[in-house]
Parts: sequence; structure tokens; C-alpha cells
Amino acid sequence: MVETMNANSAPKALPRLTIDTIRTLAIDAVQKANSGHPGTPMGLAPVAYTLWHDFLRYDPEKPDWPNRDRFVLSVGHASMLLYAILHLAGVREIDADGNPTGAPAVSLDDIKAFRQLDSKTPGHPEYRITTGVETTTGPLGQGCGNSVGMAIAERALAARYNKPGYPLFDHDVYVLCGDGDMMEGVSSEAASIAGHLGLSNLCWIYDSNHISIEGSTDLAFDEDVGKRFESYGWHVIHVDDANDTLAVAQALDSFKATGDRPTLIVVRSVIGWGSPRAGSEKAHGEALGEENVRATKRVYGWPEDAQFLVPDGVLEAFSAALAGRGTEARRAWEALFERYAQEFSQEAGEIEGLRRGEVTPGWEAAIPDFPTDAKGLATRDSGGKVLNAVAPLIPALLGGAADLSPSTKTDIKGAASFEADDYAGKNLHFGVREHAMGSIANGMALSYLRPYTGTFLVFADYMRAPVRLAAIMELPVIFVFTHDSIGVGEDGPTHQPIEHLATLRAIPGLDTIRPGDANEAAEAWKAALSHTHEPTALIFSRQAMPTLDRQQYAPASGLARGGYVLGGDEDPELILIGTGSELQLAVAAHERLSGEGIRSRVVSLPSWYLFEKQDRAYRDSVLPPGVTARVAIEQAGGFGWDRYVGPAGATVTMSTFGASAPIAKLQQKFGFTLDHVCDVARKLLRQPE
Amino acid sequence: MVETMNANSAPKALPRLTIDTIRTLAIDAVQKANSGHPGTPMGLAPVAYTLWHDFLRYDPEKPDWPNRDRFVLSVGHASMLLYAILHLAGVREIDADGNPTGAPAVSLDDIKAFRQLDSKTPGHPEYRITTGVETTTGPLGQGCGNSVGMAIAERALAARYNKPGYPLFDHDVYVLCGDGDMMEGVSSEAASIAGHLGLSNLCWIYDSNHISIEGSTDLAFDEDVGKRFESYGWHVIHVDDANDTLAVAQALDSFKATGDRPTLIVVRSVIGWGSPRAGSEKAHGEALGEENVRATKRVYGWPEDAQFLVPDGVLEAFSAALAGRGTEARRAWEALFERYAQEFSQEAGEIEGLRRGEVTPGWEAAIPDFPTDAKGLATRDSGGKVLNAVAPLIPALLGGAADLSPSTKTDIKGAASFEADDYAGKNLHFGVREHAMGSIANGMALSYLRPYTGTFLVFADYMRAPVRLAAIMELPVIFVFTHDSIGVGEDGPTHQPIEHLATLRAIPGLDTIRPGDANEAAEAWKAALSHTHEPTALIFSRQAMPTLDRQQYAPASGLARGGYVLGGDEDPELILIGTGSELQLAVAAHERLSGEGIRSRVVSLPSWYLFEKQDRAYRDSVLPPGVTARVAIEQAGGFGWDRYVGPAGATVTMSTFGASAPIAKLQQKFGFTLDHVCDVARKLLRQPE
Repeated sequence: MVETMNANSAPKALPRLTIDTIRTLAIDAVQKANSGHPGTPMGLAPVAYTLWHDFLRYDPEKPDWPNRDRFVLSVGHASMLLYAILHLAGVREIDADGNPTGAPAVSLDDIKAFRQLDSKTPGHPEYRITTGVETTTGPLGQGCGNSVGMAIAERALAARYNKPGYPLFDHDVYVLCGDGDMMEGVSSEAASIAGHLGLSNLCWIYDSNHISIEGSTDLAFDEDVGKRFESYGWHVIHVDDANDTLAVAQALDSFKATGDRPTLIVVRSVIGWGSPRAGSEKAHGEALGEENVRATKRVYGWPEDAQFLVPDGVLEAFSAALAGRGTEARRAWEALFERYAQEFSQEAGEIEGLRRGEVTPGWEAAIPDFPTDAKGLATRDSGGKVLNAVAPLIPALLGGAADLSPSTKTDIKGAASFEADDYAGKNLHFGVREHAMGSIANGMALSYLRPYTGTFLVFADYMRAPVRLAAIMELPVIFVFTHDSIGVGEDGPTHQPIEHLATLRAIPGLDTIRPGDANEAAEAWKAALSHTHEPTALIFSRQAMPTLDRQQYAPASGLARGGYVLGGDEDPELILIGTGSELQLAVAAHERLSGEGIRSRVVSLPSWYLFEKQDRAYRDSVLPPGVTARVAIEQAGGFGWDRYVGPAGATVTMSTFGASAPIAKLQQKFGFTLDHVCDVARKLLRQPE
Repeated sequence: MVETMNANSAPKALPRLTIDTIRTLAIDAVQKANSGHPGTPMGLAPVAYTLWHDFLRYDPEKPDWPNRDRFVLSVGHASMLLYAILHLAGVREIDADGNPTGAPAVSLDDIKAFRQLDSKTPGHPEYRITTGVETTTGPLGQGCGNSVGMAIAERALAARYNKPGYPLFDHDVYVLCGDGDMMEGVSSEAASIAGHLGLSNLCWIYDSNHISIEGSTDLAFDEDVGKRFESYGWHVIHVDDANDTLAVAQALDSFKATGDRPTLIVVRSVIGWGSPRAGSEKAHGEALGEENVRATKRVYGWPEDAQFLVPDGVLEAFSAALAGRGTEARRAWEALFERYAQEFSQEAGEIEGLRRGEVTPGWEAAIPDFPTDAKGLATRDSGGKVLNAVAPLIPALLGGAADLSPSTKTDIKGAASFEADDYAGKNLHFGVREHAMGSIANGMALSYLRPYTGTFLVFADYMRAPVRLAAIMELPVIFVFTHDSIGVGEDGPTHQPIEHLATLRAIPGLDTIRPGDANEAAEAWKAALSHTHEPTALIFSRQAMPTLDRQQYAPASGLARGGYVLGGDEDPELILIGTGSELQLAVAAHERLSGEGIRSRVVSLPSWYLFEKQDRAYRDSVLPPGVTARVAIEQAGGFGWDRYVGPAGATVTMSTFGASAPIAKLQQKFGFTLDHVCDVARKLLRQPE
């Protein structure tokens, strides 16, 4: 049933009227903002319509119902497609506390305020800004990665909470993605692992419009995408015409009938369908222009002068179709859950906690206390012990590493692997796919889990985009990064992070914590698990460091304030600041300098983020403004340290890349020795600037 | 011809003896260092042997011969495989100036110093450290990306310089890669574009050993890699046993016979072949241990007590085989080039310049001078004009954007696209593949080109790893990043860089330049093209900014020193520091405050990198230590600015992510207004700290 879509057709059937309403809302909103992307909504409206109208299990009255199907718009630039649908679906707004506000999620006025300051309709869909937006998208490929995390979460939740007769979790995850998504490596990584995991609850709808920004995809992209996905183990279906809603529906039926692997539906579409710019890159990223808007509306058989027109009955019928399926399902689910809660009260309590974004209480008591130990252990090891101690108490905790768990120590010992034949497994093998790992973790966090990832700090470079998006979305994802300095040793400069601490500290809203001994590692995990709106980067060493005597020095709980006075002299003339594996150097320098009659204070500064949240009085109490002789010691680039050492201070940090050698040789070469630190400190005191 | 490899075989044929020499050198070096990766060299030695012995066109006496085949070890952790081969091949060392030192590239003593400080045999292969290492590898997937750049460069050089009867450039690029490479998205992106471009000079040999660090690849990776590469348009060949050197040779023959697309050879191998740890992840990343070393040598029929043994005749025969083919080819090429130089003197001169790493002289004169203009233009536009002005004069310049050239303005107007049917084209369409773009650009720079890339600054996150590697390798790649602030406007926080300037500035050896008007944009390009050992990040705005009156203010040539006094009062009490689109705000604030009797200086600080290279006296002359009232204005995160504003200064910068709105609204919201800047300045002067 390919609908003929020309101007002079008879009074339209409701489907076509609804589809054209979506299209014209997108056209008008972009035209009014004089900014945005009209072409993809115009091309994909029939697909989105079919999915929402006939398949999505979604209750517009309760868009936060846990077992709803997820809809991810990975082509985030087509945000108006989503806003138009949320409007026509009659989705109701939910506030930050999960309560209905009584307002529509997206009103017609909201659509008229498209891309304006403080509107609910920003340029790209933003999680937490607009009810119904399941994830923030725009950076290409990220929605695809997120969707795999959502599908994993559904499987994990089902494995833990479903009971015979209680299919609490059985929803699907749908994605609209485009050529740009398909070209990005992150989606390749995500698709490969989705195939491996046999995620049959996952359906990507690929908008193959043959147009990218520079022109035809022939310029750079002519691979056989369907065949590629078959190689990943996906079920692949082709739809020749996006306007053929019957074929789209058949494809979605085929997805629903596929029980062993994810599905890719390749839909051939025309960008800017119906407009004079149809099939051209000119339809992609700018307003059509008044003349073209009129011409397009003529083609649609739409009143040329009408703007933001929603014909009578369109919203009512669309939202009713959705509610007829979704509201009923949601109500049945709530009844089911009520019975479930009687039979499985602990599990039901957990689920309610997950919905509130809480970590199951009681885990704090399990966090180990590490005894004083001069030899000590690496923070990757102490961190791994903490993770293993709390994991059994936090069912929502699920993660793993990008093929480095023996090194990152992020495995849950004795637990099974999360695999296609065991979705109850607790160790997720991401493969050597850091970028997808980050993006998948974000998706897991968006679906009630508390995900963690693991790789070497230097490979944070491979996953910057999802780390940033976790911060933008305020998701409490825990990114474990080990091998955090030239302490990596022989693997050399390609594996030794230098600038990475700075690059993470520079991200707004990300708590980057580099603990200085085992007890600070425990406190770091505690901070990470306590966060509800911040992602955390846990920075752990490869090499051992002493576990400090906390009778002699201040307790590690000071980490909760980001930085604290570890110990030292009253009335110091010098402040030694250390983080991570260099905290011991600050301590040792203090001890040696004390013997020389130099009064110094040792400050541990594991989290700049938390420290900056403290009030001025506290910060000044740790770093008194009058004490300007300050030395910061960190086996990393010095970028950013000026903030704490000031113009009269100094840093013992890296100014170049590292080198391949045993760690002791490197520390000698680059000045991370007690002798050098003391020399720098003495020089500061002799020659105050 | 599958060689039977057991202990009790008769005296070995030379091939097997050579292969086992490679294996045992790797085993012994890792054992001595007690650090490294023995398993892959052991498994892949027969493949590397066959490639080098029978195929690679490479002259050990002149390893910098321009038309040599390239060998890229993307599995950089298998560095001992390469070092052993370079030793046995008798490759001669070349110093940084391109002169032979008389020493071997890798001596047996060098191998004994594997992974030691200042050795020529670091943990992962490092370009510029070891002659014969074509690129620095280790971060997975990067060698694959680099190889595509090398293959592109060969095609581009051939298109420009080959003449009838003068096939100056006709070499191939070989890669050894592994499961990790195949899982990384960057290699997927690179493979897709290589297929698109029909790079038949490119051959990846994929070591399918079914083992990754966490264990069997069954844990996370069971896609059909061969089918995937067919979907990219590659020629795919399978070799069932890495020890079957005849099958390997047949596969390489098949590559040589394929003229229209790249080739993937999937080789099934056994990691740690012959050792008690064979086929296990335990063979991957640590020394085998003394007992296992002995056991392995017994399996190889090798003297158990011998270490670093190179049996008589092995080096001689291996290097002779290589030289017999390569030295001859190189000599013929030199004779050809001599005749070529007589007939095509300009082209020959260019080629000689390329070999010296020089940009063809004369381009500086073409750099435009922009007239004063209050309305001005965006630096993406002025930058694009500069690029277009110099491009015709610099044949080695080749680049493009990740599907954003209409926005980044990085197209060479009127020039053809670089495509499979036109390798002389000047506009390279990377597709939406930022990560591969960066990695490909590095490969192009390693093969004489001067590459540039283009994308939005926020998407620098997608290509951090290659930007870093360009800095480690000291490659003068030019990374153009436009849309450099919240000036992006309506696209919102996902597209507005905040922390990105800081994250680039934090990379050692990368020159990050954010010019403040059109003439600074010209100077920025000039700096980038003048660099020979530094990559440059050119940071350009989306929105217009005034072209300053350089009669009234200091000339833009001050950019060459990173920062300079743009203008203002003698004996200032206040310093206003601006970069990029905010330089105009500093200028305007100076003008307004002057009217209030406040004496201020305006400092333009486009490149922190170049500024820090200046001596203390110059830096103090620009930012006099006595003037502590300083305001830095930058529409980006403030991270790092403490260095220049000091504890008594202030920044007008971003402390959160941006928002979706027209730029003027954003500037109001976030304080980038003349009023706010002046308020901050006045407050500083009223309340000196």
C-alpha cells in the first residue's frame, strides 16, 4: 500500500493527515526558528507514525512507566519529528521528581518556541528537558549505542525480576538512525556487541536517504549496510519506500517475530519529501524558505497559509490509538506489579528504588576498611576489592571492561558473564570497544541500572563523547580508568596518560576522583555510588602505593569534600599537594622537610570537582591564601594546577609525553623522586616570587 | 605446504629457522624485560616472514626510499615481531636529518634492551625512535587508520607525479592487525572509506587468533569479519593456518592481482604457538616464564639454553632476499628519478621537498590581508579563504571534512573530489567518520602529504586518539575545528564545545590556535603550515567577528609569539585578555573603560602553546606580573585560565554546558556581554584581593 501523495487527492485518510501534520509541524517550526533540520522529519514521518501508532507500547499518560517500549531518535537533528509526535500523542509532562505536572509534554506553543532559550523544544532532544525524550542525541551514533544499553538493561532486569507468571520486563527498544549514525564507528561497535548478545528486543530503523551534508552518500559511503549487519548476526529487512506504511508495518511485525537477534530495518526514504528540495542535501540543515514551504504544502494538499496546523481529530485519534494499546498495557502491568509486590516484596522494593534512581541501601557498610600497610596496593586492586564487596548488595550494578578486566580489576569474582545465554550474568564483556562501552553504559543508566565501565585512562580518548553526554544528561555512570600515569611503565607513551586527568576535570558536572591510597579508593567508590546526578571517573593506578596510617593522618573520609588536610605542621610555610600515587611523595617530602625544620602541610586533593563545591571558607582552610609556597605533585600533565599552586607555587608534573621503561627509571627521568620534590620545595622557600 | 613444526624434525630449512629465530627473539626479549607481549609474534612470525621475505619491496640499506612498500604493525603490542624482523632484515639506521648513521636500525643489543629507557626498542613501536617503524602504534585500530592514509597518499602522489614511462609511485601498504583492531570503531570507519575509494594498494592481514585479553573472543566478538569487509567492498581471502606459508603467499599473490579494491587476508593463527600457553590469553601480555620458555624452545627444536640466538646464515639470507628485490628496485627508481628530474624539474623539486618535509615555498605571499571591517566575518570563513588562497601553491596539501565541508569551509573551491575514479581530486570526503579522519590524516602525513581535516570542535571528542598520536609522532597535521563555542547557537549543548579548548591545550606538542579576527586566522594558517614537527588545531568560529583595524591595534603577526599586546593604555591597571570571537569584547571593554578613566591593556592570546615557548621576559612584557587585575574572556570553560589571570584575576567563561537558543540570547544568559565584562573588570579594581 504505497500511498500516492500528491496534491489533488481526495479528502485524506487519517493516517496520511497525521503524517502530513508531523511533516508540516516540522517545516513550520524550523521556518519560524529559521534554524533546524526539516528534511529528515519530512522523509521519516510515515515510519515514525507507523511505529508509534501501531506498535509502540507506550502510555502517553504515564510516559515513565518502566515497561514502556523505548523510542530513541539517534538522528537527533530531526528533533522536530519527535516533538511533533510527542505533541500528537498527547504525552503528559512529568517533573523532575516523577510527578505529573498536568501540562502536555510538548504543547503547540512549545513547538512554536522551537530552538528558543529555555524552551522544551531545544535544537536536539535533551533528556531531562522534555518528557518523552529517552536520551539526549545529536552527536551521531550515540543514540545507537544508548539503545544497546537500554536493550541490555531490559534483559538484565527481566533476568533478575521476572518470575513465572510475572513478565514485568518485556519491552522493546526502537531506534531511528541515519547514514551519519551508520558511518560512525561507535554504532559499528555497538551493533557488533548487540549481535553477539542476541538482543532480540532491539530494532534499529535505518533511514537510508542517500544524502549527507556534503551531498550524495555516493561521495563517501556506498557499503552494503544490510550485509554488514548480517555479518554482525542481525536480522535485516529492507523497505523500499518510507511512504509505504504497510511495508513498514510488515517489517516491524517481522522484528516482533524474531526471537534470537536484533533487527535492522533499512528504509529507503527521500529527504525533504514533497518539497522542491526533496532528495537534496539542501533539505537537511536549514529552513526551507517561505516559497518552498508554500510549494511543499501545495504538494501535501495542505492549506498554504496555515501554520502549525493540527487538523481536527488528528491528535485525538493518534493519542487514542497509542493509549488504547499503551494505557491498557500499563494498567495491566500495575495490577501485575501489585500482586508481585505481595509475593516478592524485596524485589518489588528494589524496583521501586530503581525507579527513584536510588541505589539499594545498605551497601555502605560493606565498603572495606584497609589496614595501614607500607607496601600497600594499587588503587586498581583496592578499587576492585571495593567493587566486589558492594556488588552483591547492589543488584542494579552491572558493568565490565573493554577487554581489560584482568588489568582493570573490574570483574565481579565468581559471577557469571552477561551473555546471550545468561542475561543474569554480572560481568559484561564489552570487547575492545571503548566508545560503544561508554555509550552503552549511558543507555543502561537511562534504564534503571547503575553501570560501570573499565579501561585504561589513556583510552578515555576513545570514549570522550559518551563521558561528556553522561555529564550533560546527569547520569550517575561510573567510568573506571586504571593505569593512570607514567606508572604504566614499559608500555610507553602511547599507553601513558598525560593530559587525560585535565581533560576529564575540564568536563562540567563530571566528578573525577584520583584516590591516594586504598582507603581513599574506598571513599571514591562511595562518592561515585552516592551520586545521583553526576557521572564519576574513578582514576586508579597500576602500581602499588602505601596504605596510609589514618591514626597519624586525617581519615580518608575527607575525600567527600574533594580535598582535605591530610596532616603536617601547624602554621605551615609550605603546602605539599598530592593526588593518587603521588600522595605518598607529598607525605614523604613533608617528613623529610620536617627534619630540616621546614614546616609543611600535606593536602590530599583527589577530586577537584568536589573541592570546588565547598564554600570559600573551607577551601581557604585547606589552602590558606597566605601560604603561597605550594608544590603540587602529580604524574600527569600540569595543565590546570595553576589554580591551586598559584603564581608563587610550583608543580612536579609532566610537560612532555612519557617513555617506555620500568617505572623507577621513569620516575627518576621525570623527577618524581623524593629528592626532586624536596629540591623544588626548598627552592620555592628560598626564592619566593 | 603446512610445515610440520615439532621438536624432532630434521635440520630445518632456512625459512623455518628464520621464523623460529623471530619467535625466540621475541620470547627472549620479553622474558629478559619481564614485560611485553610474546604471543602474537610467535603466532604471526610465519606470516611476517613470508610478507617480508617474498613480497615487501623494501631496501634495508635505504629504508626511507619513497616508493618502498609500507609495513604497518597495527598490533603494536607485538612490537618484538617488528624489531626482530628489522634486525634480521639488516635494516640500516637513518638519523633525524635523513642521513645513514652506519648503525643497524635494530641491533641484537637493542633487542636485549627491549622496553628499557632510551632504547630503540620501546614497548610499542615509536615513529622517529626506530628506523623502519612507519608509524607509532599501540592504541588499537590506529595503524589500520594510518594505513588508509598511506594508501591514499600513494594514490595522490601517483596521480600528481607519475608520468607516462615514469611510475614513480606504485607501492603497496601492508598491515598486520588483530581482533582488537577489528573491534575498534575506527578501523570500521577506515575500512569503509578504503572500500569506497577502491584502494587496491592496501592489504590488511587480520590475525584471527580467537583470543583477547579477557579470554576467547567468543566472550564478545563472533561476527563474520570477512563478510563485513565484503560489505565494504573489499576483496577477502581466508588462510586457515598461519604456519602455512604457501597459503599466505598465495593470498598475497591474490592481493597483488586485485586491481580495484583493498584486500583483507583473514589468517587463522594460534597465539603463543608452540608454547604451553598456546591458544590462551595467558600468552598475550606477559613473559612466558623460564620453564615455559624452555618448553617452547624444545618444541621448536631450539637449544634450550641459548638466548637471543640468531643462527648463522639467518640474517644474511633474510636480508639478502629482501635486498635482492628491494635494493634493485630502489636503484632502478633512483635512475628513473634522475631522468624524471631532467624532464620534469619542477615536479622533481617538489618531490625532493616533500622528502625533506618541506612545504613548497612561495605560499606565504598568497596569504590574504583582510581589510578592516566592523561587521567582519567568521574565522571559518576567513580561514576558508586562506586555505583556498594557498592550496594551489602547496600540492602536498590534501584534506577535507567529516561530512561538514559546507559548514567548516574546508572545501577547495572548483577542485574535484578525491574519489576512486579521480585520485588527483583535492577534496577528500571523509564521511561522518571523525576518528578515522584523524587517523587517516596521520597516515597521509607519514607519506609526505600535508593533510588537513575538518569538523566541529565538539566532535574533536571523536578523534582525540589520533590528535594525540599526531603530537606524539610530531606530525604537522592540521586539524580544523569550527563552531568553536556557544556561538553555535540553536544546535544546543550537544554541539557547543565547552571543555574542548582546554582538552586540546593540555596535549603536549599540539599547537592550538584560536584566532581573534580574519588577519589572525591568516596568521594561524601561516603558523600551521610553518610547523614541521607539531600538529596544529585551528579553532574557528561559526559567527562573524570584526576585522580589527591594524593601524589602530598591533599587527596580527604577533600571533606568531602566541600572545601579544593588541593595544590599550600605557601603564595599565587592568589587563583584558581575549581569544577568538571574544577578542572583540576585550577591545570593546577597553574602549568603554577608557571613557571611565580606567587604564587597561588588551592582550590577544590565540595560542598558549606558542606563548609558552617565548622567554620569560617577553611573557612578562605582555602580562606584567605587577598588573594582577586581569580578566580573561572566552566563550568556553574556564579550566586552565588561572595560569594567566592569577588568583587576583577573573574569567568570563563558561562553568556549565550551553543551551539551545539564538546566539544573542546565549551571550546574554552566560554573560558574554560588554556590560558584564565591564562589571567584572570594575569589580576587580574596586576589590583587589
